[in-house]
Amino acid sequence: MAFERVGFIGLGRMGRPMARNLLRAGYRLVVYDRRPEAMAPLLEAGAEAAGGPLELARASDLVITMLPGDAEVLEVCAGQDGVCQGLRSGAVLVDMGTNHPDTARTLARAAARAGADFLDAPVSGGDVGAEQATLTIMVGGEAGVFERVRPVFEVLGRHVFHVGPVGMGQVFKLCNNLISAVQMVAVAEAFAVGRKFGADPGLLRQVIMVSSGRSPAVENRPPVPGILPEAPASREYAPGFTTELMAKDVGNFLRLAEAGKVPVPASALARQLYLMALGSGYGPKDYSVIGELFRGWAGL
Amino acid sequence: MAFERVGFIGLGRMGRPMARNLLRAGYRLVVYDRRPEAMAPLLEAGAEAAGGPLELARASDLVITMLPGDAEVLEVCAGQDGVCQGLRSGAVLVDMGTNHPDTARTLARAAARAGADFLDAPVSGGDVGAEQATLTIMVGGEAGVFERVRPVFEVLGRHVFHVGPVGMGQVFKLCNNLISAVQMVAVAEAFAVGRKFGADPGLLRQVIMVSSGRSPAVENRPPVPGILPEAPASREYAPGFTTELMAKDVGNFLRLAEAGKVPVPASALARQLYLMALGSGYGPKDYSVIGELFRGWAGL
Amino acid sequence: MAFERVGFIGLGRMGRPMARNLLRAGYRLVVYDRRPEAMAPLLEAGAEAAGGPLELARASDLVITMLPGDAEVLEVCAGQDGVCQGLRSGAVLVDMGTNHPDTARTLARAAARAGADFLDAPVSGGDVGAEQATLTIMVGGEAGVFERVRPVFEVLGRHVFHVGPVGMGQVFKLCNNLISAVQMVAVAEAFAVGRKFGADPGLLRQVIMVSSGRSPAVENRPPVPGILPEAPASREYAPGFTTELMAKDVGNFLRLAEAGKVPVPASALARQLYLMALGSGYGPKDYSVIGELFRGWAGL
Amino acid sequence: MAFERVGFIGLGRMGRPMARNLLRAGYRLVVYDRRPEAMAPLLEAGAEAAGGPLELARASDLVITMLPGDAEVLEVCAGQDGVCQGLRSGAVLVDMGTNHPDTARTLARAAARAGADFLDAPVSGGDVGAEQATLTIMVGGEAGVFERVRPVFEVLGRHVFHVGPVGMGQVFKLCNNLISAVQMVAVAEAFAVGRKFGADPGLLRQVIMVSSGRSPAVENRPPVPGILPEAPASREYAPGFTTELMAKDVGNFLRLAEAGKVPVPASALARQLYLMALGSGYGPKDYSVIGELFRGWAGL
Repeated sequence: MAFERVGFIGLGRMGRPMARNLLRAGYRLVVYDRRPEAMAPLLEAGAEAAGGPLELARASDLVITMLPGDAEVLEVCAGQDGVCQGLRSGAVLVDMGTNHPDTARTLARAAARAGADFLDAPVSGGDVGAEQATLTIMVGGEAGVFERVRPVFEVLGRHVFHVGPVGMGQVFKLCNNLISAVQMVAVAEAFAVGRKFGADPGLLRQVIMVSSGRSPAVENRPPVPGILPEAPASREYAPGFTTELMAKDVGNFLRLAEAGKVPVPASALARQLYLMALGSGYGPKDYSVIGELFRGWAGL
Repeated sequence: MAFERVGFIGLGRMGRPMARNLLRAGYRLVVYDRRPEAMAPLLEAGAEAAGGPLELARASDLVITMLPGDAEVLEVCAGQDGVCQGLRSGAVLVDMGTNHPDTARTLARAAARAGADFLDAPVSGGDVGAEQATLTIMVGGEAGVFERVRPVFEVLGRHVFHVGPVGMGQVFKLCNNLISAVQMVAVAEAFAVGRKFGADPGLLRQVIMVSSGRSPAVENRPPVPGILPEAPASREYAPGFTTELMAKDVGNFLRLAEAGKVPVPASALARQLYLMALGSGYGPKDYSVIGELFRGWAGL
Repeated sequence: MAFERVGFIGLGRMGRPMARNLLRAGYRLVVYDRRPEAMAPLLEAGAEAAGGPLELARASDLVITMLPGDAEVLEVCAGQDGVCQGLRSGAVLVDMGTNHPDTARTLARAAARAGADFLDAPVSGGDVGAEQATLTIMVGGEAGVFERVRPVFEVLGRHVFHVGPVGMGQVFKLCNNLISAVQMVAVAEAFAVGRKFGADPGLLRQVIMVSSGRSPAVENRPPVPGILPEAPASREYAPGFTTELMAKDVGNFLRLAEAGKVPVPASALARQLYLMALGSGYGPKDYSVIGELFRGWAGL
Repeated sequence: MAFERVGFIGLGRMGRPMARNLLRAGYRLVVYDRRPEAMAPLLEAGAEAAGGPLELARASDLVITMLPGDAEVLEVCAGQDGVCQGLRSGAVLVDMGTNHPDTARTLARAAARAGADFLDAPVSGGDVGAEQATLTIMVGGEAGVFERVRPVFEVLGRHVFHVGPVGMGQVFKLCNNLISAVQMVAVAEAFAVGRKFGADPGLLRQVIMVSSGRSPAVENRPPVPGILPEAPASREYAPGFTTELMAKDVGNFLRLAEAGKVPVPASALARQLYLMALGSGYGPKDYSVIGELFRGWAGL
């Protein structure tokens, strides 16, 4: 194997099953999460524990991070006692979280100062994709570095793309997530109107799933309780992917659009609606909870 | 066969292949279109021509309409010398166009006055679905009437749903098309931003097609010329489904939402963007031309 | 005086003081309101009561209506036993409510069938303007008819404009009210953000009142309780002008924009926000209650 | 006079008449602008020229900046060879441009390091207000410092408010300008619809000016050429206040709203429309040029 030891930081809903898949594939794994209980199942499965990001970096020739957002990954990697202070020369740092392209470039510079390489490699597929190793992975960085890490990516996902230089993985991911975010709003509006006029929401989902309005939002996250048992809406909107995270991604997409002075009115509106959801206390719920705003306004 | 003779009115991009599929399945067909050249290929294939809607209705025990919008179907069916003046008692009128539920109810009343039944049965799947008989058909009306016409629907499409009383087919269809319309806007915004930052649009399409933002909009109608030869964008936005028709459907969805006093901000915004597209002269183009608005604003 | 007897229908917050001003100016007045208690103060002041719209019309050579909306004025004037069935040849019907221009044209046709003339003459200035006879009146109709009624308008308001043919008064009024409606949304957003960052809202109002953001919305209806005693917000949002009426006016403006295919994204968004306010139960409150939506979302 | 010598940086459309008013009031003035031709008229009127921000600061006990935006004022004041490197202990730095509150706080810290005080004191009233000394001035900072500078403010404007600590002047100003920006959009939509239905735009302005929709946008900047000779629209949209500056202010307001997680959908939409205007090449024109977007879409 190209890498002797892989460090993995961030063992939440996404990171834990990804780390486990690496262990199963035979990688020697050293893990860190600031919550000890998040590390426990990995340690039982054969991973080693690091005392912190710096120690983990010293012990690894490939470091993967899977953290909630820009602030967290910047602190863990580029902060005091962070990964980049321990990175070996020739090692590779890969951020697989969804963040702003500027964050990717900041991390790449910090890695370069340690003589290490960097890839941004955000994923699509959710916790199910992470568990089943069917993620789509969009990688930004140098082609040579990408090729070195590709076998690792192929353990974690089914579709692995090299999409451009550092930061481009994040550009692709933000574009994808913006579409998801707006799709959910459209689905929520359509279901609110449909229900208001007596449409059976389960049937509406079935019909749209074989029509031009189909998307993962309709298939996996119909924003109405009870029509799909495994959907977040049927489990009190347990995430899944939280409204907080979706709001963050839409926010990052908007910052990108702003930087390019590209008008994106639907994205801007979606951001506002997710802010209304946050302001209504829905931040920790699955983002399909946006449907509850419309349910309320529609008097359903 | 349950119906001795089927009348078919409206032989455009959708109606022509649908009528041909009925002929192939062995139905005796009488057709009408105010443009004689639209009737010609059907007549060659064995259909009979009617001189007008009224004459066609007199000769049929099932009449199917596939016309652009509310005004057209109301005139052809409920107007002077229209279908409903010739409908036989016991016949069935089926509107397979996409219209407002109120239009469906108006047609049902007009049919009832002639002793005939009515179904609204709009379809999803586009001209390709019409040709390949893979349409999804969403039918509103009485269950008994639906069962009588079901064999005809099964010749035309793959997924046939009885979704509720008269008008409910249109409610389902408008909900579906609203989602499509908003999806396209989101896709256009995402591609504009992605391209502004150097993303390869063909690769972006491929990546999103295996990610959470996937939808028929990304798959079949990427709003960038040259990345998918068969997409409208690569053929000077030849429709496909025109901006005019999509704008009409979003307008009908909004009228429905208004009638139910359901706030639908993303739908309202989408309507405004399609109006901007109409105001920019894009009405007769495929609705993916909305991407051109963003291309212009983004300076791409 | 040009008119011997003036009939006045609709004695609510606006109509009552307007009718009283006509009495004070010496006009013989016959009044009707379906709520007898609304008529009482006018009868005490010297007006005569009519038993209904038709009877009132028969007794008047000028009939003024001041009703909540299109449905009401159409029923009262063009319905069974309505004004137009009793209008004398040569009489004038004036609708001073705010309605759609199509309603004005419908009323003009109904009046013409009775040999009578019609003006649409909506007003701006609110209940205070009605009481103090300082209304602005925007009149659509024929110039000669306008000149005949002008002395009556000058009793009721300070600024009287002949703005064009029948319906144009309503076009002007809807344009004005759309601006008011959007201004209030902008003011609500500004005050929510200002307060979130510690701005004193009373001081914010004072400063904006002498800056470029000033408008009657800031001056008379600051959407924060307690900073202006006479503002609706300080009186539990007692109207004033209800959210229901403002939502109706924005809706009518949008119908007009739709008819002209003019994109109006801010108006469309404002309509959606007022629908959210209606869906939150705020319909009968003054429309400055829109500020409460933002207060809630902002966690103030 | 409390200040012996006043330094003034930024002699554009606003700064030049403000500086001249200080000279007329008897203040000894030292000026700087990177464009020598901007300084010339002030030097003729008796001001002294400084070679740069640092030299100017060394020669002044009060420094006023009036620059286009955050980047400029940060560079001029807090950058290499900037004002704060030359500020005397006990001097006062006053930024009268419109910027983000964070910029104000950054400048206050930089001034404090030099032992100097800081006020943010943005103004409303435009070039006319600057010339006639009728500006409204909204001041953030310590009360004692405000009182020291108040006499200078009273030379420049008519309404001077101490609105809170450092940064609060900018909060007030951004709230005001957001309202202005949205008002203009509403006015542009109303005039587009009105004109589409034949309304005389000059008359429409007159009527709204005495109705509830009135505001400086309608009074001074009607977005239709030819109805008010002195309006930007009648002078090929010569600014006035440029679309670039208004877009910047709306952007700063949105950043503020984002920081407070306050949903502001109308503001977000306005930002998008101003971005469309920038993308259409209207950046250097007066922001009332937004009306041209609507004119185009409406086919006027």
